Amino acid sequence: MNITGFTYCGFIQVPLMDRTIYFNGKFVPENQVRISFEDRGFQFGDGVYEVIKVENGRAFALYRHLRRLARSLHGLDIRISEDIDFGTVVRHLIQANSASDGLIYIQITRGAAPRAHGFPKDSKPTVVAYSMPWNDITPKEFDAGASAIIIPDERWGRCDIKSLNLLANVLAKQKAAQAEAAEALLERVGVGVLEGTSSNLFAVSGGNLVTAPSSPYILGGITREIILELADQLQLPIEEKALSKKQLLRSDEAFITNRGIAVLPLVTIDDNIIGSGKPGPITRRLAFAYNELISKATDLEWL
Amino acid sequence: MNITGFTYCGFIQVPLMDRTIYFNGKFVPENQVRISFEDRGFQFGDGVYEVIKVENGRAFALYRHLRRLARSLHGLDIRISEDIDFGTVVRHLIQANSASDGLIYIQITRGAAPRAHGFPKDSKPTVVAYSMPWNDITPKEFDAGASAIIIPDERWGRCDIKSLNLLANVLAKQKAAQAEAAEALLERVGVGVLEGTSSNLFAVSGGNLVTAPSSPYILGGITREIILELADQLQLPIEEKALSKKQLLRSDEAFITNRGIAVLPLVTIDDNIIGSGKPGPITRRLAFAYNELISKATDLEWL
Repeated sequence: MNITGFTYCGFIQVPLMDRTIYFNGKFVPENQVRISFEDRGFQFGDGVYEVIKVENGRAFALYRHLRRLARSLHGLDIRISEDIDFGTVVRHLIQANSASDGLIYIQITRGAAPRAHGFPKDSKPTVVAYSMPWNDITPKEFDAGASAIIIPDERWGRCDIKSLNLLANVLAKQKAAQAEAAEALLERVGVGVLEGTSSNLFAVSGGNLVTAPSSPYILGGITREIILELADQLQLPIEEKALSKKQLLRSDEAFITNRGIAVLPLVTIDDNIIGSGKPGPITRRLAFAYNELISKATDLEWL
Repeated sequence: MNITGFTYCGFIQVPLMDRTIYFNGKFVPENQVRISFEDRGFQFGDGVYEVIKVENGRAFALYRHLRRLARSLHGLDIRISEDIDFGTVVRHLIQANSASDGLIYIQITRGAAPRAHGFPKDSKPTVVAYSMPWNDITPKEFDAGASAIIIPDERWGRCDIKSLNLLANVLAKQKAAQAEAAEALLERVGVGVLEGTSSNLFAVSGGNLVTAPSSPYILGGITREIILELADQLQLPIEEKALSKKQLLRSDEAFITNRGIAVLPLVTIDDNIIGSGKPGPITRRLAFAYNELISKATDLEWL
């Protein structure tokens, strides 16, 4: 199981190379999208992104994602045209690509300009959005749980901006793959184990549901936010702190979250068995509540 | 003065849009280079680069740059075809673009693949190389010296890899531009002031020529390496350590180096005057020795 590996399943109706892509204001066939080699996304990672889950043709928590996208853009001082209605873009991509279940990826960079570190005066942001297939975690995979490793967090100081500077995440995820683990959990010196390379981390420890607090050291996941709201509704005691490696390995339950995997139980971390070695009761309650939220929602976009 | 701003001067003979670009094994006109929106350079900053100075039609210290490029590729486990002879590529670009004075930029990414953090199984690296104009620092600019600001170092833990994850550098350089300074010097908590966003930092302090030691916290510049060799030949006492902000502000001289600016004296840092407020004697000796090295070299490529 690779939690960010987009396994290409047989159900996607539009072949990948024929996808309709949103590119700088237009919907175009995939082969008409061309990125400049002087795009600042390509040369500096100078841009931001979002990945949004599509459930039954509706973009899950669309407006939370778009709000975060706006915050990320603000964090990098990238200014895009106010004319772009991303709600319409996302809905059109879902329809044009028959992508009723999958993911929508949106990326915005500062645009192309002759290479120099500082912001160029007149670059026009590059905006790309497209659909990708996604296979949900199956009930069987959920029950089996997953394993994770802990490695030093080498990311930069602004992990709260959902930027394209993802090399530390890439290298960490690769280490997880080599260890046949689903995720690498990142431990920052003097702070604690914060989150995964593309997921937030939760544990049940000392009777509390524990997750790292919002800070520049973590990417505040939308799923993390929703899980905390559900935990609050279920009156579970919540503690927002980064656990030490020792505390994490001794916790009763652990799981990771992101828009794709939803809730994925961790049953071993660094070869230590967590709790009973099976998904724990709090993990199950929260996963159930999350699925209920989706299935009963009257408007998924506004969740 | 913008030390990485490539001011387009009137002397470049091939108009920019008509440049010949090396792209994945071929020399092509600029408008035939197209980067995929799924290139890992564009989506993750998953790649490396080099910038090489051209002096009188010869690539300065070409083989030191290519050796570092190989190290960077190794650091990210990106494997390129052994058939690429970058020496020939660089020489052809210089000739085809009449770029006898300027810069050659080489970028290699892990290539295009459906988006997932871990390394794709079969992606083919993307290789782009092209020439860019560059205006040398004039003697007048050297004599006037430049100013710098000190800001917190927010970069990741592998600054020794010359990677495309440059957002911390971009944001820092932008702060320098807003402060009308030539460079931002990066201070890592508990370590000291390490280097600039695109330059290495030297100071004359306590009678020694001081610069941060090689470590994952700095990018080991080729110019830094050559300056240290020249200082050794001139029997200047060298100390490789990161100065504290306080020590730096009290130093007798300070300067920054990179392949473009060579040696640029810093006469104010954070509005504090350094030494006499003019380029100091050690700075001048080293700048002179560096220029001598270039003008007297029999083979610039192998310097």
